[in-house]
Amino acid sequence: MTDAEKSVKMVVDRWNASIANLDKHLNAITDEQLEKEIAPGKNRGTYLLGHLMAVHDEISLLMDWGGKLFPELHEPYFKLADKETDQVPSTKELRAHWAKQNEFFREKFKQMKPEQWFEKHTAVSEGDFFKEPHRTKLNVLIGRISHLQYHTGQFALLN
Amino acid sequence: MTDAEKSVKMVVDRWNASIANLDKHLNAITDEQLEKEIAPGKNRGTYLLGHLMAVHDEISLLMDWGGKLFPELHEPYFKLADKETDQVPSTKELRAHWAKQNEFFREKFKQMKPEQWFEKHTAVSEGDFFKEPHRTKLNVLIGRISHLQYHTGQFALLN
Repeated sequence: MTDAEKSVKMVVDRWNASIANLDKHLNAITDEQLEKEIAPGKNRGTYLLGHLMAVHDEISLLMDWGGKLFPELHEPYFKLADKETDQVPSTKELRAHWAKQNEFFREKFKQMKPEQWFEKHTAVSEGDFFKEPHRTKLNVLIGRISHLQYHTGQFALLN
Repeated sequence: MTDAEKSVKMVVDRWNASIANLDKHLNAITDEQLEKEIAPGKNRGTYLLGHLMAVHDEISLLMDWGGKLFPELHEPYFKLADKETDQVPSTKELRAHWAKQNEFFREKFKQMKPEQWFEKHTAVSEGDFFKEPHRTKLNVLIGRISHLQYHTGQFALLN
């Protein structure tokens, strides 16, 4: 196993462990609890779950896999703040979307060869990638893990 | 730049960005705000800051750099839960320790050569490292970034 292969394994393992950890929190609470604010006046758990899915859907674009799974989540959970619209999926639908999205990523990541993780992601130009060769697909996932963990610390407050 | 060198840069950059992001939150609030609970009945900001330092101090042991900077923080901020002891540093001291610890890591990480990040950390045996060669010093930092981000999402609620 080369150091580059180890790096890919470390990061993908961390993604999977982060998803599993958040799932543990989500499975420990009812839909009603998930619909509550994480702290007085702050985002509701349901908003955060939709927000994570909207952000994770961008991974598909950055990896050049084609379209998003749930493009309709961008408006209510990324563009708008919590409670700015009531055109949102039910909590049960959100949970089902979440499971489906994670299964999708698990399969996709399994299929990727280590060297593909070191390709440039789609939001960086060839010229910039030449100057900053660390702006890889692996770096996209490193950033998304950080974002996921940030909000997981907030979900933990719902129980 | 090899893929292994890129991996080290991606992770160390992410650590530094995570610390800078938390510093932004910490600098935006007063000591009084930091002493508040992040949500009703949950940990206080000061406890979380001490907790992060206690956990980060373990990095020195795992990297085999010798002792911790603040071994006295283990008892009140790791072994014990919030409010179980009042033998704790003042909020001003905590902030000063935090700055000192981060400066220490910044310097240490700068001095490390890429290949050193792929050495085994001290909590894994030679035998286990042979079977699981991804249990590297870089993996320690990947784990600590996740932990840091988890709590950063909680600090963000104080403002």
